[in-house]
Amino acid sequence: MATPKSLSGRGGAWAVGAETQIKAVTAQVLFTMEANGSGLQNFPELKNDTFLRAAWGEETDYTPVWCMRQAGRYLPEFRQTRAAQDFFSTCRSPEACCELTLQPLRRFPLDAAIIFSDILVVPQALGMEVTMVPGKGPSFPEPLREERDLDRLRDPAEVASELSYVFQAITLTRQRLAGRVPLIGFGGAPWTLMTYMVEGGSSSTMAQAKRWLYQKPQASHKLLGILTDALVPYLIGQVAAGAQALQLFESHAGHLGSELFGKFALPYIRDVARRVKAGLQKAGLAPVPMIIFAKDGHFALEELAQAGYEVVGLDWKVAPKKARECVGQTVTLQGNLDPCALYASEEEIGRLVQQMLDDFGPQRYIANLGHGLYPDMDPEHVGAFVDAVHKHSRLIRQN
Amino acid sequence: MATPKSLSGRGGAWAVGAETQIKAVTAQVLFTMEANGSGLQNFPELKNDTFLRAAWGEETDYTPVWCMRQAGRYLPEFRQTRAAQDFFSTCRSPEACCELTLQPLRRFPLDAAIIFSDILVVPQALGMEVTMVPGKGPSFPEPLREERDLDRLRDPAEVASELSYVFQAITLTRQRLAGRVPLIGFGGAPWTLMTYMVEGGSSSTMAQAKRWLYQKPQASHKLLGILTDALVPYLIGQVAAGAQALQLFESHAGHLGSELFGKFALPYIRDVARRVKAGLQKAGLAPVPMIIFAKDGHFALEELAQAGYEVVGLDWKVAPKKARECVGQTVTLQGNLDPCALYASEEEIGRLVQQMLDDFGPQRYIANLGHGLYPDMDPEHVGAFVDAVHKHSRLIRQN
Repeated sequence: MATPKSLSGRGGAWAVGAETQIKAVTAQVLFTMEANGSGLQNFPELKNDTFLRAAWGEETDYTPVWCMRQAGRYLPEFRQTRAAQDFFSTCRSPEACCELTLQPLRRFPLDAAIIFSDILVVPQALGMEVTMVPGKGPSFPEPLREERDLDRLRDPAEVASELSYVFQAITLTRQRLAGRVPLIGFGGAPWTLMTYMVEGGSSSTMAQAKRWLYQKPQASHKLLGILTDALVPYLIGQVAAGAQALQLFESHAGHLGSELFGKFALPYIRDVARRVKAGLQKAGLAPVPMIIFAKDGHFALEELAQAGYEVVGLDWKVAPKKARECVGQTVTLQGNLDPCALYASEEEIGRLVQQMLDDFGPQRYIANLGHGLYPDMDPEHVGAFVDAVHKHSRLIRQN
Repeated sequence: MATPKSLSGRGGAWAVGAETQIKAVTAQVLFTMEANGSGLQNFPELKNDTFLRAAWGEETDYTPVWCMRQAGRYLPEFRQTRAAQDFFSTCRSPEACCELTLQPLRRFPLDAAIIFSDILVVPQALGMEVTMVPGKGPSFPEPLREERDLDRLRDPAEVASELSYVFQAITLTRQRLAGRVPLIGFGGAPWTLMTYMVEGGSSSTMAQAKRWLYQKPQASHKLLGILTDALVPYLIGQVAAGAQALQLFESHAGHLGSELFGKFALPYIRDVARRVKAGLQKAGLAPVPMIIFAKDGHFALEELAQAGYEVVGLDWKVAPKKARECVGQTVTLQGNLDPCALYASEEEIGRLVQQMLDDFGPQRYIANLGHGLYPDMDPEHVGAFVDAVHKHSRLIRQN
C-alpha cells in the first residue's frame, strides 16, 4: 500500500497537461495505479460484507446499519480526542481521524465505518481559507463574490494531492479496522460545496448562492465544473487509499426546486458517478458502491435513482414506501429514521425501527438515520437503534 | 365598526367561564357579535374580488397574485417606517401596521393585501417575552424547558383581547384600502409557534422542540392545545375586525416527517379550520376562505388538502402538476415561484412565471412566491413578477 509519504510525494504529477479534465484523469490514473500496485490487496480480509452486499443489491441475512455522523460529539471520547486541537487540524491528522472513525465501532456493532473528515477540505484544498467557529459552524473569511474570484482557486487537478492527509487517514483506518466492517469515503457534492464557498458559511436561505445561479449561470457552471474536476480524483484517490464505498453529500439540495436542481446539481452528481467509475476502471481498481444523499431532495428522487449511484440515501421526510415506488427496484435505499427519534425511549426507538424496517422491506436496504446524529444525543440510544435494526431485520426474514 | 378602544375594553368578557375552550368560544361570540353589529357592512365595497373568487374556487378573468412578505425590508419606504421604533412596537401600532401593509399596494397592482404583523404576537400574548434581535431574529429569553413552564402561560381565552392592537390595525387598514383589494389576516400554526417557544429562537434542526414531541408527548399536546385555543378566537377576531381571508403559516412543517406531522401538526391545523369556521357561523359572520401554508410539508399535501382549508399554499420545491395530482380538484393552490428567482433578469422572471402559470393552469390558482421576499430583492423585479402573472394569465385564457 502506498504510504502517506509516497502519496504526498506524487503531488507534482497532478499538474501535468493543459486541460483540467485531462490532467485530472491522468493524475487519477497515475495515482491510483501506484496506490493499487503497491498493495490494496494487502489490507486485512473483510469479515462483514453485509453493508456492501446490500449496497450492490445482493441478498443479506439481516439489514446492515450505520449512522451519519456516527463519529461525533455525542460520544464523550470524541469530545476528548477533538479537544486536543482545532477542527481542521484534526482533519489533517491521520492518527486523530483514524481514532475518531473507530470510536463508534468500539461501542456499537455497526456494519460500516465512515472516515472522519469534512466536506469543506475540498474548498480548502482549492485555496480557500475555512475555519470552524465553535458554536457557529464553518466560516470563509473571503467567500466568492464575483466571477473573477474563481481565478483565486487552485487548479482542481492539484486538489487530490493537497488532500493526501485524507488518503493517509483512510489507509491507516482500513488497516486498523482489520476487516471488521467496510470503510466509507465521502465528499460534498458540487452544489453543496458551492453554497459554502459563496455564502461564506451557513445560511437558512442560501440566497447568495442561489443569486449566483440566477444571475451568473455561466460562472456558476464554471465553479461547479471546477468542483467536479476536484472531486473526481479526490474520490478515486480515496478508493485507491482503501475506501470500500463512497457517499456524496448533497446536503443543500432542499434549497433548490426541480428546475434549478436539474440544471445545477443533478448534472454534476451524474458526472461525479460516471467519471469516478470510469477512473476506477482505467486505474484497474475494483468498483465500489456509490451512495448519493441529497437531503430534502424529495422532488428529484426519481432522477437521483438513475444518476449512476447504487444507493440513494433518504431523509426522514420521505415515506419509505413512496420512495420505493418512486425509484423502482434498481437501487438500494438508505435511511431514514428521524435523528430526533433517538430522543425517545428505547422502547419507542424499537417501535419506530420496526415500522421503518417493515416499510422498507428486508432487501436492497441499508438502515441509517435521515440525517447526522446531534451532539446532545445519548450514546445508549444509538446502541438501541443499531440493536433494534439487527434484531428486527432478522425476525422479519424468518416470517 | 368596533373602535380600537371598545375592542380593548371587552377584555373582561374573555375571562368568563371555567373551561378554556368554552370560554374561548363564548368570547369569540361576544366579541364578534359586537364587532359585526357595529358595522362590518360599513366597510367600503370591494372592487377587486379576483383573489377571493380564486380562493373559493370560482372562475377568474386572470390569475390573482400577492407575495408573502410583500410588506418587507426590500422596500426602502418600509425600512424608513420601521426605523422609527423596534419591531414589536411597530406591531403594536395600528397606524404603522396599516402604513406598512399599504406600501406595496402603492407600487404594485397586487390582488390582495396582508396585514403587517408577526406570528409571534401570540406567544407574547400568552405571556412570553419575545424580542426581535436585528440581524439574528426572534429571541425568547425564557423559552419553555419543562412541562411545568406551561403554567407560566396566560389563559388562551385572554389572548385575543391582548391582541386588540392587531384587530385595530386590520380595521384601520380595511378602511384605508377603500375596497381596492381584500385584506388577509394570519397566524402561525400551533407546531410552528411551539418551535419558537421551546427553542427560544431560530434553529436549523428544531431539535429541542422535537425532543419535546418524542419525550413529552402529553406536554406537547397540552401546549399545542393551548396554542389552538388561543388561535381560534384570535383568527375569528381578525375576521370580525375586517380580515377577508386567513392564512395559517406552518413554517416549520419541514422538520417533521409524516408520522410526527400527523400526530402533532395536522390535528391542530384541522382544529383551527373547523373551530374558526364554526365560530364565524355562530357569530353570524360570513365565512372567509382559509389558506394553509405548510412550508416543506410536501409529505402531507394530500392530508392538507382535506384539512378544511379552501387554499393550500406551496413552496417552490413542489412541482405544480404533481401538487395538483396529489390534492385533486377540490382546493385552490397558491404559490410557488422560488423567491430567489426574483434575482434573475426581468425577462427570465417572465419566462419562469409563464412556465409556472402553464403548469398550474388558469383556474383554482393564486400566484405567489414559494416563500417570503428577501430584504435584498429589487422592488422592480417584484413588479415584473406581478405584471408577468397578470399578463400571461390573461393570454392563456384567450388560447
